[in-house]
Amino acid sequence: MRLEIDEQPAALRRTLAALVPRIRDVRALSNRAGRGIMFLARGSSDNAAAYGSYLIQTRAGLLSSSGSPSISTTYGAYVDLEGMLVVALSQSGQTDELVESLRWAHRCGAHTLAITNRDSSPLAEAAELTLVTQAGSELAVPATKTFTSQLVAMAIIAAGVGAELDLTELARVPDEIERLLAIRPDFEPMATSLAQARAVIVTGRGLTAPVALEVALKVQETCYLPAIGLSSADLQHGPIAMLGEQVPLLVLAPNSGPTVAGLAQVARLAGTTGAQVYGVGGNSELVSASTASIVGARLPEWVAPIGLTIQGQLLVENLAQRLGLSPDRPRGLNKITQTA
Amino acid sequence: MRLEIDEQPAALRRTLAALVPRIRDVRALSNRAGRGIMFLARGSSDNAAAYGSYLIQTRAGLLSSSGSPSISTTYGAYVDLEGMLVVALSQSGQTDELVESLRWAHRCGAHTLAITNRDSSPLAEAAELTLVTQAGSELAVPATKTFTSQLVAMAIIAAGVGAELDLTELARVPDEIERLLAIRPDFEPMATSLAQARAVIVTGRGLTAPVALEVALKVQETCYLPAIGLSSADLQHGPIAMLGEQVPLLVLAPNSGPTVAGLAQVARLAGTTGAQVYGVGGNSELVSASTASIVGARLPEWVAPIGLTIQGQLLVENLAQRLGLSPDRPRGLNKITQTA
Repeated sequence: MRLEIDEQPAALRRTLAALVPRIRDVRALSNRAGRGIMFLARGSSDNAAAYGSYLIQTRAGLLSSSGSPSISTTYGAYVDLEGMLVVALSQSGQTDELVESLRWAHRCGAHTLAITNRDSSPLAEAAELTLVTQAGSELAVPATKTFTSQLVAMAIIAAGVGAELDLTELARVPDEIERLLAIRPDFEPMATSLAQARAVIVTGRGLTAPVALEVALKVQETCYLPAIGLSSADLQHGPIAMLGEQVPLLVLAPNSGPTVAGLAQVARLAGTTGAQVYGVGGNSELVSASTASIVGARLPEWVAPIGLTIQGQLLVENLAQRLGLSPDRPRGLNKITQTA
Repeated sequence: MRLEIDEQPAALRRTLAALVPRIRDVRALSNRAGRGIMFLARGSSDNAAAYGSYLIQTRAGLLSSSGSPSISTTYGAYVDLEGMLVVALSQSGQTDELVESLRWAHRCGAHTLAITNRDSSPLAEAAELTLVTQAGSELAVPATKTFTSQLVAMAIIAAGVGAELDLTELARVPDEIERLLAIRPDFEPMATSLAQARAVIVTGRGLTAPVALEVALKVQETCYLPAIGLSSADLQHGPIAMLGEQVPLLVLAPNSGPTVAGLAQVARLAGTTGAQVYGVGGNSELVSASTASIVGARLPEWVAPIGLTIQGQLLVENLAQRLGLSPDRPRGLNKITQTA
């Protein structure tokens, strides 16, 4: 896992080189599908999709959401998808449920696009257009470089459907990630403290909320530590009651943008419950509201999720080691998940 | 909380009497908004909305999903919602974030509908059409009867937008709930065992997945026990690694329909991890795969979520008592949540 975390600058550069020229293909397809975007995905891929939906809605003004594969695979329902662009994400391109769902979307009238990390796959065969991320083969079971490559693919999709994005900011991400990884930020104090926790809540907001879900998923599957990923708004609607001495809060915040102040405020609120608060990124208010904190990468808000994900991976890898677990081969998981 | 759990047959009858005649109003509004449905909600209300989206997609063949209020409130983005029906759910009708989001939806071209539990509220004032559930005033902080009344409202919305539903099956729900509550199913063994757990995973599938999220939320906010609500498909994509001696699984299943076999299979898989498995509803396979189980209410699959929610409430209330907590006044929560 640690090796693959370090491969991310190269994986992101390759993915950018391969996918930026495909923006025109996405545009051509989306011109025939202006009603909205529906993503189909599971696990980490669905967290990448959630980032895509935020980006598309906030920057392209186009409706976008994740669909439920069970609508087709379990219920066999027909849904009118005329005029929709349906995007399926699967790193392996081999999850039956997603292949079946994408075929269903086509039968329901949608235009279809696949995002995979393999040149040829059943999912690619089922789609009108396929974007292949260039993460290279991932040996550790927890998705790291394939996930951040999917975030890049989401930016490509957003640009293709008309989002106003400065792609030079995206192009600078690999260099900044390289700088970040060279610093080797010290997650040991946080990991040592987290290793004692009963459970952890991970939170973000807006574009960063999907990173909170992804980091929580990594904690669950790699460290077996109960982790709950939530937007800070959802956290305040009930789950905040869980916070306390045994249940700390991890706050993932971009360095700038409209979510920073609210995330610092939630961190401060969490501190009043007696919970440890760990901050990654954010402003000086988040730092002062946190028990321990790590400086975020120097990235504009819309690409900050890539840096925050990688910092989350470093924390998770450190935590797994501290718990005496192998982060590469978690129990009960495979690279290709088939659903009962 | 216990009193309000018991009030549900009456609350559901009043809500049905008030809302069935409104189906025609929903139909009239939705005839002008055929592009799809977007729900706006937080917390329990968002879980009710997820049930609504499944029902609308599987039975009316119409696109439906939950939107992110932060798109408008945090990012101030314009999203093209021409031809959409946007439905905001808030029990109090007073959550600023939702009032603001519904006004935004109107400015973006959507037709708007509010579902509240109060005759007059800022949310109702912002909507073209309002359906008022008749749960009566709810004194305990955790939503019980207001939530199941929202599930009824979701069925009304689904019927209004063209879902093929047998409303006599919905009309029989209060009687069956009354019978269920009179039996007083014995959740004590499950609650006693759960009180020792480090955390719990709650799962369902399809129409029942939103109930898993709701029961998990109730465990979080009322018992402060880390609880993770997931569809059984998402559970298999990573989080299943958490299951073990300290982390049991609670499976909520309807008695019939296309999700039953898969849920029993997931329960069996969970059992191999050494985790305790608690089953509510389902078939004989789920019973035999479970460490302890409770028979489900006699309800067709599409209304089973109402019965399963109430059984979840009974379990949560029992668990809170066992942990020496007051289920009525959880720490850190209010009836009306404003978001930072």
